[in-house]
Amino acid sequence: MTTHFERPVRIRFSHCDPAGIVFFPQYLVMTNALVEDWFNEGLQIDYAQMIAQRRIGLPIVKLDCEFSRPSQMGETIMLTLSVSAIGRRSISIDILGHCNGETRFRAKQVLVTTSLESCRSIDIPADIANALAMFAPQPEFSEAQRS
Amino acid sequence: MTTHFERPVRIRFSHCDPAGIVFFPQYLVMTNALVEDWFNEGLQIDYAQMIAQRRIGLPIVKLDCEFSRPSQMGETIMLTLSVSAIGRRSISIDILGHCNGETRFRAKQVLVTTSLESCRSIDIPADIANALAMFAPQPEFSEAQRS
Amino acid sequence: MTTHFERPVRIRFSHCDPAGIVFFPQYLVMTNALVEDWFNEGLQIDYAQMIAQRRIGLPIVKLDCEFSRPSQMGETIMLTLSVSAIGRRSISIDILGHCNGETRFRAKQVLVTTSLESCRSIDIPADIANALAMFAPQPEFSEAQRS
Amino acid sequence: MTTHFERPVRIRFSHCDPAGIVFFPQYLVMTNALVEDWFNEGLQIDYAQMIAQRRIGLPIVKLDCEFSRPSQMGETIMLTLSVSAIGRRSISIDILGHCNGETRFRAKQVLVTTSLESCRSIDIPADIANALAMFAPQPEFSEAQRS
Repeated sequence: MTTHFERPVRIRFSHCDPAGIVFFPQYLVMTNALVEDWFNEGLQIDYAQMIAQRRIGLPIVKLDCEFSRPSQMGETIMLTLSVSAIGRRSISIDILGHCNGETRFRAKQVLVTTSLESCRSIDIPADIANALAMFAPQPEFSEAQRS
Repeated sequence: MTTHFERPVRIRFSHCDPAGIVFFPQYLVMTNALVEDWFNEGLQIDYAQMIAQRRIGLPIVKLDCEFSRPSQMGETIMLTLSVSAIGRRSISIDILGHCNGETRFRAKQVLVTTSLESCRSIDIPADIANALAMFAPQPEFSEAQRS
Repeated sequence: MTTHFERPVRIRFSHCDPAGIVFFPQYLVMTNALVEDWFNEGLQIDYAQMIAQRRIGLPIVKLDCEFSRPSQMGETIMLTLSVSAIGRRSISIDILGHCNGETRFRAKQVLVTTSLESCRSIDIPADIANALAMFAPQPEFSEAQRS
Repeated sequence: MTTHFERPVRIRFSHCDPAGIVFFPQYLVMTNALVEDWFNEGLQIDYAQMIAQRRIGLPIVKLDCEFSRPSQMGETIMLTLSVSAIGRRSISIDILGHCNGETRFRAKQVLVTTSLESCRSIDIPADIANALAMFAPQPEFSEAQRS
């Protein structure tokens, strides 16, 4: 069973600050792109169409990050996404950014499905809920986390 | 005693996404600018000089955010910064973004003083520690928070 | 007669690259904000309302820039906007970024009024055309430019 | 003989503005990344090492763009780079952004090699000059351009 989705990202000149390392808001632009790729390629849900035609938004309501080590221009960071909880109107994901076995950052995000017309939360649409099932957290894994 | 620092920020076209609301990493670019203004104007520590000449960095190691309501292009959001803890090598701040009495987001950030030469944490320099004292969390306030 | 509009902008950590100077696309984010301020404060046309309610866009179709000197974090750059031509569906502006008498960059931009519904160009709406008249290029000035 | 370098780029949520199309400064972040990829993969010059270790900068001094058609979230744009002139201290490049045979934008850029220590222009280093020779504009092509 698939439990995570991952994509590499190259650290570019435009990601870096005068200290020569990733400017932290850029990590969140990267995680947003990762969610986009996960929808398109992992869940097989067309993200652009979801926003522009179906008018379903996926705003973030909660974000907890730890930045453990800086990343330098020229490095390739692997971003790994897993699902920690699926609610009726929300998806909780964990994203790990790592490089050569070293953790660079972790981000826990809670995303909510909304109507871009009413600007209110809506139930996760059936096709998205079905696709998410494949990434649903494993009971055993949750047990392990709880202990 | 001064306990907070605040600055308004206008929500611009460039902050907003295809849903017409602030793209969340932009909030963190705003909070970074707020910290910069706080150093320059609140603490009277020249931020650019601190980075470029003194080679002292102030990376974030922990970030916890809640995004409660979206912000629209054209609005002016008030950002309020207060200090929740001062360590030997770290500063914990709380930032509240609000508009017309409505909370838009909260961000708790832990910043660490580092040497940009060695890339290691360093004790908060004396001039910065002295300036921070003015914003130190009030004991009573901390009590209230703890209960 | 008013012939230009100007606003200062502080060069921030988030504008700068690993070389410690403004990353050039950031200059264009700044000129976009300047146009926004010019509409709101110079022309007295509510920019956010123009985009979001009236559904009038103002995309750029032509951009010519010269970057003559780098700008450093901590500097305050003055941005000066003047109008070089007003067409039926387009506005040509010149933006100069300078600091202490030194030119940092110049940007010539042609903006077109469009309908965000049809995605096609439209005549400049009457209220905007009237407001623009105040900033219309002076004949003498145009003569001087031509010779 | 190799005369151009190209890479696709997916238009993401983070590139787009409230009008749902690419915010134009984002195109220039993309062209900066293209130059980075061209150095790394086309010229076989390590871009990050050039900046961070060799302390050679490549600032832009001139930029001329035409934005002919908007690009939407979800599209994949092909970016094609060719060299139009190589000077002693400068490289002139043309970048075309296109999608399904339709031109979206063109950008002509003049980049200058500089020392990040002295902040002055320097001759193009020999290894870079040698690598550039492969992309040098063809005489016939230059003739055609001149007529």
